[in-house]
Amino acid sequence: MSHSVEILSVGTELLLGNIANLDAQILSQGLSELGLNVFWHTVVGDNPQRAKEAVAIAKERADIIITTGGLGPTCDDLTKNVLAEAFGKELLFHEECAQRIRAYFQRIGREMTDNNLQQAMLPEGCTVLDNDWGTAPGCAFFAEGVHVIMLPGPPSECRPMFQHRARPYLLSLSEGVIASHTIKLFGIGESTMEAQLREQMNAMSNPTLAPYAKEGECELRVTAKAATDEAAQALLKPTVEEMKRLFGRKVYGVDVPSLEYVVLEGLKAQGLTIGVAESCTGGLMAKRLTDIPGASQVFKGGIVSYTNEVKNRVLGVPQDLLDQHGAVSAPVALAMAQGARQALGCDIALSSTGVAGPDRDDRGNEVGTMFVAIATPRDSFVRPLHLGSRPVRERLRIQTASHAFDLARRYLAGLPYGKQT
Amino acid sequence: MSHSVEILSVGTELLLGNIANLDAQILSQGLSELGLNVFWHTVVGDNPQRAKEAVAIAKERADIIITTGGLGPTCDDLTKNVLAEAFGKELLFHEECAQRIRAYFQRIGREMTDNNLQQAMLPEGCTVLDNDWGTAPGCAFFAEGVHVIMLPGPPSECRPMFQHRARPYLLSLSEGVIASHTIKLFGIGESTMEAQLREQMNAMSNPTLAPYAKEGECELRVTAKAATDEAAQALLKPTVEEMKRLFGRKVYGVDVPSLEYVVLEGLKAQGLTIGVAESCTGGLMAKRLTDIPGASQVFKGGIVSYTNEVKNRVLGVPQDLLDQHGAVSAPVALAMAQGARQALGCDIALSSTGVAGPDRDDRGNEVGTMFVAIATPRDSFVRPLHLGSRPVRERLRIQTASHAFDLARRYLAGLPYGKQT
Repeated sequence: MSHSVEILSVGTELLLGNIANLDAQILSQGLSELGLNVFWHTVVGDNPQRAKEAVAIAKERADIIITTGGLGPTCDDLTKNVLAEAFGKELLFHEECAQRIRAYFQRIGREMTDNNLQQAMLPEGCTVLDNDWGTAPGCAFFAEGVHVIMLPGPPSECRPMFQHRARPYLLSLSEGVIASHTIKLFGIGESTMEAQLREQMNAMSNPTLAPYAKEGECELRVTAKAATDEAAQALLKPTVEEMKRLFGRKVYGVDVPSLEYVVLEGLKAQGLTIGVAESCTGGLMAKRLTDIPGASQVFKGGIVSYTNEVKNRVLGVPQDLLDQHGAVSAPVALAMAQGARQALGCDIALSSTGVAGPDRDDRGNEVGTMFVAIATPRDSFVRPLHLGSRPVRERLRIQTASHAFDLARRYLAGLPYGKQT
Repeated sequence: MSHSVEILSVGTELLLGNIANLDAQILSQGLSELGLNVFWHTVVGDNPQRAKEAVAIAKERADIIITTGGLGPTCDDLTKNVLAEAFGKELLFHEECAQRIRAYFQRIGREMTDNNLQQAMLPEGCTVLDNDWGTAPGCAFFAEGVHVIMLPGPPSECRPMFQHRARPYLLSLSEGVIASHTIKLFGIGESTMEAQLREQMNAMSNPTLAPYAKEGECELRVTAKAATDEAAQALLKPTVEEMKRLFGRKVYGVDVPSLEYVVLEGLKAQGLTIGVAESCTGGLMAKRLTDIPGASQVFKGGIVSYTNEVKNRVLGVPQDLLDQHGAVSAPVALAMAQGARQALGCDIALSSTGVAGPDRDDRGNEVGTMFVAIATPRDSFVRPLHLGSRPVRERLRIQTASHAFDLARRYLAGLPYGKQT
């Protein structure tokens, strides 16, 4: 039988828009990977009557109900009460859970108030899902043909609770295995990619091919369903290879988290170090590199030069270059990268300069006019960018930083730096 | 009559977890501000049967249904078809809309395929909500006691479409006005704040007081409902003043977007410039400052010194200080801030050094051990932080940067730098 899943989230903060429903996203991703069909997301507030009605609807149409939120003492354990009632179950005190809750408070060094023990009241006959990431335990039971799984609301608890508690429980329910690979591309637009692939995508059923665009990058997710992981991988392989052939140098990796991750890994493999000189990206390049744990092995530092004075004094960009071409120019981008190599003592340096907006600069350069450059032991190269003024400031900065990282990953992969954009 | 709203989002990408339901969050915030009660969020995929059933449920329980998504040609305009059918309406061709769609494609310089004109088919008798941010127009109608509003799915379209099209339509339905102010605090924990306010919060009904915590900061939102904005403001004022008195120096602003924004505004007002020297925050401080348009008026630059060599060479931190105390120490934090003032030629410099993890450093400093410092024309000051190893790397970096900004805003406001944390 093919399962149908409803994710039911309980929390007034969702209905007020204080937070987005990340739980539903996290669970949907995980459930899709298990080959389980999520057909509905529902959100209700901390209101017993409306929660009860929502459960009645879910019970009618879904055969797996996964709830998030409404488990803690502040909402009177609304979710457990409503679900237990809907399936005619009592809530019973669970001594083992109570002990875990007491131990949790001891571990974090905070005093436990009595209302926390309410959380040890659980539906009779349920499987307890221990919560190592917070206080409220989750639980699962099967009744009247429906699997019910309750998880805590905070994403920092919901995510590991799904991964380590609910997922093993659900694995036994899913038929076959879903496997996928994500091909990451830089330097191609989503519409161009889609146009190239449309016919093929429509003709495919297993594996399937789905394109995504985000922040100036593209992804292609290839997904296959089979009886075993090996069989699914065998289905995936030819398509992944074909896509790599088709998009060539634009593919920067498969199943890698980001461009900057690929750059850091390439540097480590080749024993090289990196540094950055940033104007328009204002620290974002350094930030993105150092977001990755272990960046310190290869990242020496960065200089954010937001004035000509700093470009000249710290990066050694010649004053006459600044006077002649202006800060937003190819020669200055190159000089910044070369200067950063010297000042930071690194093998490879990247630079950015441009107009992130909202206004054009005093030399009349339009918003979206950017230059990124690389300086290496072998050569220097500058890539001019015309990103247009439509993207917002934040997106312009992200895309500019990505272009600089693209230069580095091309250098490390022995590829030409590529044409202007 | 008090209205009850259901937000119904249509899109398989939501059920697959490819994206979070940001539309529901955006709309919920906006609707709450209008004093309209959002009681349900529902998500269904691009499936006519399940969409139809979801609409039937919504029609039964809500008197305002706002849909997002399912309007474009790729999903056969599912939402419009289903809603029109549910309320017994025909879809009619709207020549004016068709012209707008053609003009849109001309403006962005792309060829229009014929299926785009499907988007000009709209329910008879509806109010057209022109879409200046994409191709698919929205629409609104009132039938069988229910207000129906359909908005496009991409958040970049849904957000302005709500603000500029749906909101004016809805304003006439809301009774009275909701106004709110947000008091921003730094240096106090959410639980401490809640404990101090619990009794008061429970006793209040208009205005109400709601605390939020995020990324090491706290917010207090004070909200009042009244017949006019003036009356609502009069209700808010005493509570805002009381909270400012109660939390004193911990309040860094009211209705301000961020700590760094307050710092930049303070610098502009006093004609001072700023620079940063970052180790553990790795560019985040510079990035946060330059996220704000106009930062270049007061931000001169930053130096990300991820090695002792760069700390010594670029920032001028004495080598013996580094040898004696290690990079993660109060004397080095101070020397970094002082060095940045010199190197960048700025009035005020902030610095950070610490262990962001995942592992302790080679001198045995635990993850979460941080130092932030400030150097000014008047003095220098270092604040040691023990943030613990529980927060993830990203959060540790955010909190550390915020502590540095807190030193700057205290300097600018003429307050003492405050005690250790």
